Amino acid sequence: MADRPTSIVILGGGFGGVYTALTLEKLLKREIRAGRVELGLVSRDNYIVFQPMLPEVISGSIGLLDTITPIRRLCPSTNLYTRAVDKIDLDKKRVAAAAGFGSRQCTLEYDHLVIALGNVTSFAGQPGLAEHALPFKYLGDALALRNRIIHTLEEADIERDPHVRRALLTFVVAGGGFSGVEAVAELNDFVRSAARAFRNIAPEEIRVVLLHALGLILPELPKSLAEFAQRLLMKRGVELRLNTRLHGATGDAALLVGGERIPTRTLVSTVPSASNPVVATLPVRKEKGRIVVDRHLELPDHAGVWAVGDCAWIVDARTGESCPPTAQHATREAKCAAHNIAAAIRGGEKRAFSFTALGKMGSLGHRSAVAEVFGIKLSGFLAWWLWRTIYLLKLPGLDRKIRVATDWTLDLILPADITQLKTEHPESVRRAYYEPNEIIFREGDRGDWLYVLVDGEVEVTKHVSGQGDVTLRRLGPGECFGEIALVSDQARSATVRSLTSVNVLAVDRDAFNSLFSNLPPLRGFFEQLIEMRSTAPGERMAKS
Amino acid sequence: MADRPTSIVILGGGFGGVYTALTLEKLLKREIRAGRVELGLVSRDNYIVFQPMLPEVISGSIGLLDTITPIRRLCPSTNLYTRAVDKIDLDKKRVAAAAGFGSRQCTLEYDHLVIALGNVTSFAGQPGLAEHALPFKYLGDALALRNRIIHTLEEADIERDPHVRRALLTFVVAGGGFSGVEAVAELNDFVRSAARAFRNIAPEEIRVVLLHALGLILPELPKSLAEFAQRLLMKRGVELRLNTRLHGATGDAALLVGGERIPTRTLVSTVPSASNPVVATLPVRKEKGRIVVDRHLELPDHAGVWAVGDCAWIVDARTGESCPPTAQHATREAKCAAHNIAAAIRGGEKRAFSFTALGKMGSLGHRSAVAEVFGIKLSGFLAWWLWRTIYLLKLPGLDRKIRVATDWTLDLILPADITQLKTEHPESVRRAYYEPNEIIFREGDRGDWLYVLVDGEVEVTKHVSGQGDVTLRRLGPGECFGEIALVSDQARSATVRSLTSVNVLAVDRDAFNSLFSNLPPLRGFFEQLIEMRSTAPGERMAKS
Repeated sequence: MADRPTSIVILGGGFGGVYTALTLEKLLKREIRAGRVELGLVSRDNYIVFQPMLPEVISGSIGLLDTITPIRRLCPSTNLYTRAVDKIDLDKKRVAAAAGFGSRQCTLEYDHLVIALGNVTSFAGQPGLAEHALPFKYLGDALALRNRIIHTLEEADIERDPHVRRALLTFVVAGGGFSGVEAVAELNDFVRSAARAFRNIAPEEIRVVLLHALGLILPELPKSLAEFAQRLLMKRGVELRLNTRLHGATGDAALLVGGERIPTRTLVSTVPSASNPVVATLPVRKEKGRIVVDRHLELPDHAGVWAVGDCAWIVDARTGESCPPTAQHATREAKCAAHNIAAAIRGGEKRAFSFTALGKMGSLGHRSAVAEVFGIKLSGFLAWWLWRTIYLLKLPGLDRKIRVATDWTLDLILPADITQLKTEHPESVRRAYYEPNEIIFREGDRGDWLYVLVDGEVEVTKHVSGQGDVTLRRLGPGECFGEIALVSDQARSATVRSLTSVNVLAVDRDAFNSLFSNLPPLRGFFEQLIEMRSTAPGERMAKS
Repeated sequence: MADRPTSIVILGGGFGGVYTALTLEKLLKREIRAGRVELGLVSRDNYIVFQPMLPEVISGSIGLLDTITPIRRLCPSTNLYTRAVDKIDLDKKRVAAAAGFGSRQCTLEYDHLVIALGNVTSFAGQPGLAEHALPFKYLGDALALRNRIIHTLEEADIERDPHVRRALLTFVVAGGGFSGVEAVAELNDFVRSAARAFRNIAPEEIRVVLLHALGLILPELPKSLAEFAQRLLMKRGVELRLNTRLHGATGDAALLVGGERIPTRTLVSTVPSASNPVVATLPVRKEKGRIVVDRHLELPDHAGVWAVGDCAWIVDARTGESCPPTAQHATREAKCAAHNIAAAIRGGEKRAFSFTALGKMGSLGHRSAVAEVFGIKLSGFLAWWLWRTIYLLKLPGLDRKIRVATDWTLDLILPADITQLKTEHPESVRRAYYEPNEIIFREGDRGDWLYVLVDGEVEVTKHVSGQGDVTLRRLGPGECFGEIALVSDQARSATVRSLTSVNVLAVDRDAFNSLFSNLPPLRGFFEQLIEMRSTAPGERMAKS
């Protein structure tokens, strides 16, 4: 032990992880400088996202990079590993982080481990959500949503079919908690102000819908504030659907429990979160998927292992209640854990964790907000002003403070930005979900995808003059369709419709061509399939 | 003709296309308002990129969105189609634009057509460049380069192998014209200032190399200015490799003509451009791939079809010389074409095109530049100040002017931003190129990819204790390797090395699993392959 420094490894680059590192850098300054303690932080991204400002990225009212702060600048004495965590080995006291360039994993040994991995978005159990709904948690999600909104406006501007227009101009947000309300408020402001730059879109065509499972939004706040927020959103044109749950989604509709469909191309879901998979597989005691710690934030049976933030089940030492998963709490928990680790290393008294939140606030967009601070309720412009001021003070790093303050000032005088920043590759292999009796593609469409049926059944039909639509064949799991248009470069030669609920894999033209032309057994398989289907188009109908 | 409005369709959202639309909106204001003329513009993106500022996106010294201006705001009376152009049909006078959401192409009929499609980056003929070099033309390219630089710094900070470190910390730019020099200058400034935030990177480890085919960079400028630029770049730490050509690239090296390899993970190529494929297939007269037009910018055999910008071969009416492909020229050509279209519609005199460029300038980063304006040569800070002022005035739109001016002011006082914005999906199917005798993967590596050999030959070896490396088999085109680690979730069970030049397709774990587990014939094929290889590991060696 005297030979090598004490190693503290922190997992997670959110408020819990970063504030633990930051506090340890201060408390153990001398030990770190003398080489007796080494600090390591493993984070998926090299920055911390300031979540409360994420909705403003939608409208571009603050710069894309200004909601985030580089971790290296905040924690200059910490070794940052910009990697995903693959596995925690509590027995051997080491952590495996994913491979970077090349394929080598890196392994970190620890004396103290701080788990601050938060939770992840999970759409499991709701058909079509993983494929077609937009999550709203990371910076990339906010950017993707912004681009989707602009893309739908671009398309609506030149679309003449009224049904397609309606779906393009309807925007649905599921979940009426803080993040859903803030997201729908910004989305509504942005879409209505951006639409003015589009020649062929009338304001009354735009529909913004908020789905909420209970009778009143913002359950975190007192009733009077929640009611204020509801009235304000409705006044601004948001359609509130209370006591309504989302059942699932397809490529062009939100499906509600009870069977209703809302045609839309933009469905945002802020509801579902699940344990981080690394936490889920960790063999320690958990409560509601969160890691149980003692009053010092240490794991009862694993000395030297600590947990803070949304992934930890922490009972307040004073009130005896479990702590809510908020940034305010994560920050305080991080400071407490850092103090106790320093005490464990140097000797000293450990502290029990207790904290009462100072207040709660939520932005409602366009210079309005609701807040409850030290028991006082505020709403409207004053709450909004307080919201901006407090968050500006809390934003880590002086340079960010300057940049955001500047952005906000410019935003007061400049129009909404409508540039669509396409930085994403189109995916070459994607999944899609269809309800029964939906058209997957139509005869005459341009064919850019090969489909593989994962489950469910589809029907292939062709229009024959004089006979109407003739059924060519039915297909089931493991069969594919759409290959003819891809190989021949012509329009779709038939229409495919789902008979049941259907999950498909879609492979795009480029991936299909390169993969299937280079793998001889695959080429053989498809050549045979096309040969068979084109010479005997109705051969399988004998069965059906 | 009296029934429907005259339709003018413009293809391309660069300076040529946008300035044609902008000028036509002014000239034909009355006709457009009365519904007698309809203007349409087809552009891949809904914004115009201000190319001269693209290098500054690398360092983040101006906001990501501030180099670009929304076309809708510039041309409010034009119908914008945010689509790619698929095909021009000169006989039927119509244009097909790609499908948007869903799969329906849209077709536009025209009375006047303006082709302003510019050119595209092409790496054809240089092995490995398409797979491993970064282009530098669009906004997305600048963002991708910025992220690559930060990613390599992140990796170098925690990498101990000196060879890998060297490749990570070497940055190569090929091409010493304006765009290459501006890119290398910004890259050099950014990488050296950002590296200060990384604990384990020493300044002297960083190597920035500029490759140029001739003996002096910036052939567009007078010799004295080019020499000034060369001295300045060298002083700032850029390594100049003159009279040097790039031959190709692999995943971790730039290959020079003559056989030298420069180990690097970041190779930027600004050199190659080719005709837009839509222009290339158009059956009209061309000169060096560019569309030949008459002195009025109209196609000789196609009345009502016009071409401007980089895709047009335009001979100056006064000097008799062909016009260079610059933004200055494209803008003037656009105005001339718009005037002549208005004359054709209303009746009036057509104008012949002639224009002498006002000057040339290039930024050298960090408050220095070179310029030649009205025959006067300038260099250093004065040229840089002129560069910023002129481009600020030229930047379309008042709100952009304010935003950029603000960014530049903040940039003088704030440190370089090092947040890495990962908005890209990892590609699920990618291509890679290897030189003879390179390791594709090593026994014991983590296995995340299945490889399909497109051409060339590889050797599979395994370490056997007591016998050293034993060759298991040799594989050729159409065969695959790497499937065992993907199926079993274990480390690579063997090492694969290229025997010749090798092109491969790599399919990632997710795509492999979803594709191959859902397509029964594929599953059968791989199960058989794995069975065969694991029971008789050396069976093919009898042949070799």
